[in-house]
Amino acid sequence: MPKHIRLNAFDMSCIGHQSPGLWTHPADRADTYNTLEYWTDLAKTLERGKFDALFLADVLGIYDVYKASPNTALEHAVQVPVNDPLMPVSAMAAVTSNLGFGITCALSYELPYPFARRMSTLDHLTRGRICWNIVTGYLDSAARGMGMTQQVAHDDRYDVAEDYMQAVYKLWEASWEDGAVLRDRAGRRFADPSKIHAVHHHGPHFKVDAIHLCEPSPQRTPVLFQAGASRRGREFAAKHAECVFINGPSKKVIGNIVRDLRARAAACGRDPSDLVIFTMMTIITDTTHKAAQDKYQDYRSYVSEEGALALMSGWTGLDFGAMDPDAVVRFDNRSNAQTSALEAFTTADPDREWTVREIARHAAIGGRGPVIIGSAEEVAEELRSWVEETDIDGFNCAYALTPGTFVDIADLVVPELQSRDLYKHDYAPGTFREKLFGRGARLPATHPAAAVRR
Amino acid sequence: MPKHIRLNAFDMSCIGHQSPGLWTHPADRADTYNTLEYWTDLAKTLERGKFDALFLADVLGIYDVYKASPNTALEHAVQVPVNDPLMPVSAMAAVTSNLGFGITCALSYELPYPFARRMSTLDHLTRGRICWNIVTGYLDSAARGMGMTQQVAHDDRYDVAEDYMQAVYKLWEASWEDGAVLRDRAGRRFADPSKIHAVHHHGPHFKVDAIHLCEPSPQRTPVLFQAGASRRGREFAAKHAECVFINGPSKKVIGNIVRDLRARAAACGRDPSDLVIFTMMTIITDTTHKAAQDKYQDYRSYVSEEGALALMSGWTGLDFGAMDPDAVVRFDNRSNAQTSALEAFTTADPDREWTVREIARHAAIGGRGPVIIGSAEEVAEELRSWVEETDIDGFNCAYALTPGTFVDIADLVVPELQSRDLYKHDYAPGTFREKLFGRGARLPATHPAAAVRR
Repeated sequence: MPKHIRLNAFDMSCIGHQSPGLWTHPADRADTYNTLEYWTDLAKTLERGKFDALFLADVLGIYDVYKASPNTALEHAVQVPVNDPLMPVSAMAAVTSNLGFGITCALSYELPYPFARRMSTLDHLTRGRICWNIVTGYLDSAARGMGMTQQVAHDDRYDVAEDYMQAVYKLWEASWEDGAVLRDRAGRRFADPSKIHAVHHHGPHFKVDAIHLCEPSPQRTPVLFQAGASRRGREFAAKHAECVFINGPSKKVIGNIVRDLRARAAACGRDPSDLVIFTMMTIITDTTHKAAQDKYQDYRSYVSEEGALALMSGWTGLDFGAMDPDAVVRFDNRSNAQTSALEAFTTADPDREWTVREIARHAAIGGRGPVIIGSAEEVAEELRSWVEETDIDGFNCAYALTPGTFVDIADLVVPELQSRDLYKHDYAPGTFREKLFGRGARLPATHPAAAVRR
Repeated sequence: MPKHIRLNAFDMSCIGHQSPGLWTHPADRADTYNTLEYWTDLAKTLERGKFDALFLADVLGIYDVYKASPNTALEHAVQVPVNDPLMPVSAMAAVTSNLGFGITCALSYELPYPFARRMSTLDHLTRGRICWNIVTGYLDSAARGMGMTQQVAHDDRYDVAEDYMQAVYKLWEASWEDGAVLRDRAGRRFADPSKIHAVHHHGPHFKVDAIHLCEPSPQRTPVLFQAGASRRGREFAAKHAECVFINGPSKKVIGNIVRDLRARAAACGRDPSDLVIFTMMTIITDTTHKAAQDKYQDYRSYVSEEGALALMSGWTGLDFGAMDPDAVVRFDNRSNAQTSALEAFTTADPDREWTVREIARHAAIGGRGPVIIGSAEEVAEELRSWVEETDIDGFNCAYALTPGTFVDIADLVVPELQSRDLYKHDYAPGTFREKLFGRGARLPATHPAAAVRR
């Protein structure tokens, strides 16, 4: 039996996520991102389509590298305004039973002690459906909001992240023993204090001397997502992540990344299949090939190529607004996660070169990721070939229109995948971690979080 | 026409809030605090009873002053475990239309820039029903979770708070002008960048150089709650607060506090009625006087007096576990908000003295606040007399049992108040601020937040 393909919906609490300008399409509802109805309707659609999770990106800054100004981002709603992604989760959890919630939270700006409480609370309220996408942030504008002049250097951010992970692992895994909570009404004892311990973490960046404020949640540590593409990012993912979100322009590029990640996980003493790897994909589909192509052409007439360059400038740190539109863009192989955005173009086809103008056009739908356009049958077969040729586990589905793209996938593509036995017919039972791995709600003994357990 | 009495429900994302031990009563559901159903059912009950708001307390630490140990708090679930109060708000907002949400967030541990986004997001998602209870924290155990050895000194915390307020006012009120958001699909312009401004706040404690990440929410600045009881706390409330939560044992004490607060507000150039003042009250009621008394006696058999002392020790900083139970407790009039807990006893009746044992017994239901026990008619008349004699606006209703106490108030007391024209028959339209003051969703020109507007 071929393995079942996993699907996440990739969204963000903003208007223009990966396809800038498409919010102006008459059928798009992205600009209702600030209503509860947008999120509860989306969650119900995704659960109907048996998506594994809603994966919410986040930034705590504004894309202001392009033309050295935030104006393009503001005018075209390019990932700004951007609301707090955690706030709508409980409303979505209340209208679903199985959908996971993978939420991006930057660890650079929040101390481990209150953050650990926030995640534990959501893991309780969702009955074990919360996942944390660990990011260190990449915009200097975010740092300036925090009273700093610029980001901590990239590799230093991973040192901070390592320290942070140790602190939150201790709070989640080592503070309350299993069996500490009695809930003994007759005996009038809620908990056994002898099984509850203050955590003492004195790391280079973080210091915690405290009992975790929450009783153990179903998963204790939320399911860990990570998306770092750099060498340090991949090392971090191989060690800590359970789900990895990658991105690349072709099966060849993605296959290499998947192989590298699984090898790194094995080198950390983990099973290579302990990493569930998703690659970004934008799917534009309809009942026929022709209808899908027409849909794509219709969408194209609403894109904002200037918005696409604002995104690309933010991701790469290069001001495309200061370049000749016909200049060829070179990939300089810096050790920076964000160069992966550029790498997505410059390594897609080693035999061709990309100008600024071409990048703008290409990135305006689906950002830096590939786009599949076709009938549901064609999409299903294309997804199958990606999985077979790359060993990827699934796809982080970006939207062109929202919720339109997700409705199309749920109602057209998923039944095609199911008829090929490439997709689950129902959710597996239990917490999100149990649905993913089928072996218990807690992290396995081979994961570094297990080392802090008492 | 007498003014309508306002009611908030006073709860906390924990098991033992103000009446320790009562979670063991067979009818109590406090220990389901970690489920969505608890919160959505509660919100629906409160909206049925036309409560103004659900007011959620919070602490980011553990009550470990009593016997110099957290063990009593842990064993009896005395405000620990305690989940993040913001997380269930969107689920409650989705099942209600008018109920406000007053959430306690300590400003000591979170930077203004991400916090302002979090509040704006909730103000959007609730369509203008969010209120922020501004606290500076009072437990050293919380500071130790953050890597410090103890709290910042009390009065210094208010200096930090002043600086923090200026930073968040600028983000909420001065970053996006009215009219900045166009949502112009045909013209393909989401916003007019010329009307969006980076905030530059360089205060003694906080530095922000950033555009607020959110477009303006219905209320911009959430409705501001404050509960400081000390001189500095009252000064802060008189300047910033729209709703003030106070506590005292008698009408005489409360009347004096209300008079002082309104005079201080007037001295700040505000209308004295710009402060909506709530005092804490625990109501135990039933269909008859006898049934209410029986209910109280039944509840008493489940209280934890040791839990009450753990609470009192945390509030006052005095270890009651190290005192002789028959020792008389003296109020030393320190300049500390927490001595108000002790003041509640030692000033209640100047002609009597309180021993540790008596305090434990008294505080075990309703914490440091008064308790009304009686038929719905008796409760309604008692509430009327509090309002008439103290000029208070309403009550922050603590629970003995949850949701039982709130159900009793909604179904028994509220109809009695309505029949006396002492309570609204329906919610006023608009945002929470409009419901409170009937004059617009934004803060008035006399409020200090208005001074930062462009």
